Formats: sequence, structure tokens, C-alpha cells
Amino acid sequence: MLGGMTTDTSVPPGAREAVLRAAQDLYAENGVAATTPRQVLARSGIGQGSLYHHFPSKRELAVAAVARTVAQTLASAAGDLEAEGAADERLEAYLSRPRDAVAGCRVGRLTADPFVMADDELRGQVAGYFSSLIDLVAAAFREQGSSGEQARDRAIAAVAVLQGGYVLSRALGDPSTMQSAVRGFLALLGPRR
Amino acid sequence: MLGGMTTDTSVPPGAREAVLRAAQDLYAENGVAATTPRQVLARSGIGQGSLYHHFPSKRELAVAAVARTVAQTLASAAGDLEAEGAADERLEAYLSRPRDAVAGCRVGRLTADPFVMADDELRGQVAGYFSSLIDLVAAAFREQGSSGEQARDRAIAAVAVLQGGYVLSRALGDPSTMQSAVRGFLALLGPRR
Repeated sequence: MLGGMTTDTSVPPGAREAVLRAAQDLYAENGVAATTPRQVLARSGIGQGSLYHHFPSKRELAVAAVARTVAQTLASAAGDLEAEGAADERLEAYLSRPRDAVAGCRVGRLTADPFVMADDELRGQVAGYFSSLIDLVAAAFREQGSSGEQARDRAIAAVAVLQGGYVLSRALGDPSTMQSAVRGFLALLGPRR
Repeated sequence: MLGGMTTDTSVPPGAREAVLRAAQDLYAENGVAATTPRQVLARSGIGQGSLYHHFPSKRELAVAAVARTVAQTLASAAGDLEAEGAADERLEAYLSRPRDAVAGCRVGRLTADPFVMADDELRGQVAGYFSSLIDLVAAAFREQGSSGEQARDRAIAAVAVLQGGYVLSRALGDPSTMQSAVRGFLALLGPRR
């Protein structure tokens, strides 16, 4: 090209990573629909050329950032649910581990995000997350002696308690509401399951 | 005033009602933040003068429409939970009654609505809804023999199962997920509680 215009192909190392992290945090705070490229630029500290080099559209950034959040959140759940030890202890560890309840679930809140729900791929990522999570929890209930159908209902109830715990803690502005929900559910599972 | 401008003080009867219903439906579909006055006008079929006569701002309309949704939803819950009959039957009737699960909860979804969460009064309406609902459910668990603290934890778990059931049904696009969550929870409460 003539003139001063250059195409920035010398993208700084780590720029893609910085953009993804910034997008993940902003989505957790404000959702995907309300997050602008300008906010992602400001939060990540990278240049506009880098952003569009890696993610030509808002949608491409959203798909990559949500995929990362889903993978991280599932890995963390698997860390509790597939650990060593008895299945009932692993279930209790997973259900009662500390959560930033008032902030809401990074994935669950996407079900109320118009940008996510209008896009088949993003919607599929959220559905895939919950399918996989329910499978992980159901496997632990089966190990612990529940039959197939019962283990699945129980796993869905357990994941619902967590998702509903987030909704209630957020609605009431009170992190202890999540703890009450989990305590109420664990008590029903029995003193030693 | 000179000229053709008139201030419309002859508001049609029922206009306020029509506006509130339109706003409630639009909020249920798209949330408060994304709902525009233009959409409310189109859905309600009333004139712009009527809209601004009753609700000078988006916020005033939101406060009135959310108050109505909260009152209706609580009245419907109380209808099940304070009916005649044994407490365990009333709890089961409330938890397992048909719900439009994929659409999500009209009140629960507001916890992810940026317009609602940024406004103390609207936020307070959502918090008030869940406080009252938890009290209603806890009263039924107490009648049915749970101690005070246990009844409250159990009630929070029960309301969380419903809220989480909505999130999961919406995420998976599958109304049967809500039913599985409720079935899993009711089975834990025991064959005859």
C-alpha cells in the first residue's frame, strides 16, 4: 500500500490470551450482549489491531471466550467429582465448596443473555456445559449406589440447587443463601449417604 | 396553547391495564433492559399520550409492571401452599405443578437484568418476592414437622430447585429437565414425608 497505512501482523505474544481473559471477566460482570469491543480493548490493554486480528467479530470472540469459561468450569467440577475417595464425600465437597454466589454462575447467567440465546453455537456451548456437568454428578451418584434413572434425577436436582442458589443469593444480595440451599439439600441426602 | 397541539387528558379506560400487561409480557420475553417504549406501545395498542400519562418514564412502568408480576406469582404460589390439606401434599402440589420451564421464571430472570439490578427499588421488589416465597415454603415445611432452621434450609433448597430447574430447562431447551429436578428433590423428601 502507498502511504502510512500498515497492517499490523506483528501481534504481541500473549495478546490472544489477554483478550480472552478480559472478555471472560467482562461477560461475568455484564454478560455478553452488553460487552463492547471498546471495553475489551480497555480491559485487556491490547491494541485494536490485535483484537481484530484474533477475533474479527464480537461473535468469534464470544465463542472462544465462552468455550474457555465452559472448559475451565467443567475442569474445576471434575476436580472435585472425580477425585480420590468415597463418592458421597466427593459430592459433598463439590456441592459445598466456596462459590461467589452473589455474582452468579458464569455459565448459568448466559441463559438470560439475549446475544447468547440468539446464537445457535453459543447456546450449544451452554447446553453442552450443563449436559456434561449433569453426567459428572450422575456418575458420582451411581457410584454411591443410586440406580440409573434415580441418579440422573438426583444429579439434575443437585445442579439445580446450585444454579438456583446463585439466583437466590443474587436476588437477596446474600451469599449465605447459597449455603442454606446446599445445606438443606445435603441434609436430605442423609447424614452419611 | 395556540395551534393544533392538545394535551390528551381523555385517557381511554383500561389503558393503564393494557400497558401493564404488555410490559409484563415483553419483560418475560426479553427482559426489562431490552424492552423499549415503542414495543410497549405496539403490544398494548394504546397511544403514546396514554403511555406517558400513566408512566412518565421507563423506570416507573418497570416498577409498576414488576410489582404486578411479583404479586401475581406470589398469589399463585400461596394458592398451592396455603390450600386445604396436608402440608406434604401442598408442597408436592406446588413443586410439581406445570411450569413454562424453557421460558424461565418471570421473576428469577430479572436477577440477570442489568436495568433491574442497577435500580434499588426494582432490585428490592425481586428480593421481596424471594423472601416472601421462601417464608411461604418454610411455613409448609414447619407444619409438616421440620424444625425452624431445618425448615428454612429446606425451603431455600426447594425454591433453588425450581429456579435452577428453570435455568437448566432453558439451557438445554428441554422442559423435562425441570420435571427431573423436582422428581429428584421430591424423592429425597421421602415416599410419604
